[in-house]
Amino acid sequence: MTARRPGGSVVLLSGGMDSATCLAIACRDSRPVHALTVGYGQRHHREVRSARALARHYRVAHHTVLELPIGPLLDSALTRPARRLRTDGVDAARIPATYVPARNTILLALTVGYAESHRLDALYLGVNAIDYSGYPDCRPEFLRAFARVARLGTKTGVEGHRAVQIRAPLLRKSKAEIVRFGNRLGVPWRLTWSCYAGGRRPCGTCDACRLRADGFRRAGAVDPTVA
Amino acid sequence: MTARRPGGSVVLLSGGMDSATCLAIACRDSRPVHALTVGYGQRHHREVRSARALARHYRVAHHTVLELPIGPLLDSALTRPARRLRTDGVDAARIPATYVPARNTILLALTVGYAESHRLDALYLGVNAIDYSGYPDCRPEFLRAFARVARLGTKTGVEGHRAVQIRAPLLRKSKAEIVRFGNRLGVPWRLTWSCYAGGRRPCGTCDACRLRADGFRRAGAVDPTVA
Repeated sequence: MTARRPGGSVVLLSGGMDSATCLAIACRDSRPVHALTVGYGQRHHREVRSARALARHYRVAHHTVLELPIGPLLDSALTRPARRLRTDGVDAARIPATYVPARNTILLALTVGYAESHRLDALYLGVNAIDYSGYPDCRPEFLRAFARVARLGTKTGVEGHRAVQIRAPLLRKSKAEIVRFGNRLGVPWRLTWSCYAGGRRPCGTCDACRLRADGFRRAGAVDPTVA
Repeated sequence: MTARRPGGSVVLLSGGMDSATCLAIACRDSRPVHALTVGYGQRHHREVRSARALARHYRVAHHTVLELPIGPLLDSALTRPARRLRTDGVDAARIPATYVPARNTILLALTVGYAESHRLDALYLGVNAIDYSGYPDCRPEFLRAFARVARLGTKTGVEGHRAVQIRAPLLRKSKAEIVRFGNRLGVPWRLTWSCYAGGRRPCGTCDACRLRADGFRRAGAVDPTVA
């Protein structure tokens, strides 16, 4: 008896810890694995370098880096250099200034189009509803609604085949749980990048750096990028 | 008593008859009106010229032309020059080769992000479920599912304000009804472009040209682009 060969997948790879962990999961569970990195006018391209290094490390079948000139269209501290990044901790009751209008909707739409074009069964997305609960487009109900869009709005969804499956395996994990899980999978943290500031080394003070440091500390692990 | 000032809107403007009619409706019903034209590696840029001419004609507050390098990612006769365009009539039971994976999902996602960033209340989209029933992402159920995504995935949707409203005023109109409706609104058909082939004049044989010709004929009207 032969096990059914699992279908391929595409990982939305930003270069951060969460998408690196998703890539490790995708490589464990599916074949072939593609990676898609989308730049949308962020402050820096340090993340894209990390994404390339991760794609090489995991020997993905294809890695596409797409630079979309949409930053000036979208109002956010992440896409407009003049606005100050928040460094006052994540406040779950308020939507952070680093919120990018419709970001995950845009990224998911592109990735569903990519997956359907390349006949891949699933997409992996490193969203997290615990540490980033301030973002509306990181919530389970948003992902469920988007899965319905993917089913109704694509050929594979409509013609009776399976629509592209949306997998967000880290959705309900804390940063510390992600560190522990990633360690078991052997995720090369040294290749990942989280800092919003984009210097040569992580700034250590932005929300992304603080969440990352807190995750490693609670997991009792050492972050090689700041060690 | 002062009438409540209607909120602004953005029109997804391709340069074709349907989006031109949507622009006329938006200018009648809302203020300010923005226009967003997205090129995604189509065979030609004749449509973009038409979009610019229409935006000037209607004196929109802003017209943004966004060129997205996503054509090579997406598998379609419209984005890959090597594939032959269908000229054998529209078959509602089959999804046409000109289907672009997740196209309307991608366009809607970008337009919702634009509308939210510019504090516009609504977006207008010229989709049509009658003449293009072969496309899954032109159906009412797809638009309803996407409206839910816009509500759950954006700051304006979540924080209790109204999410960006998705308006598809031509959804249930035939091409002939669109011609008659557009004539009443004074849509300048001469500035619009429908042909897939992108020559100096419409080819007259592709599906888009045939649907257009049929619409004008049934409406008892003259198409100035072929007259």
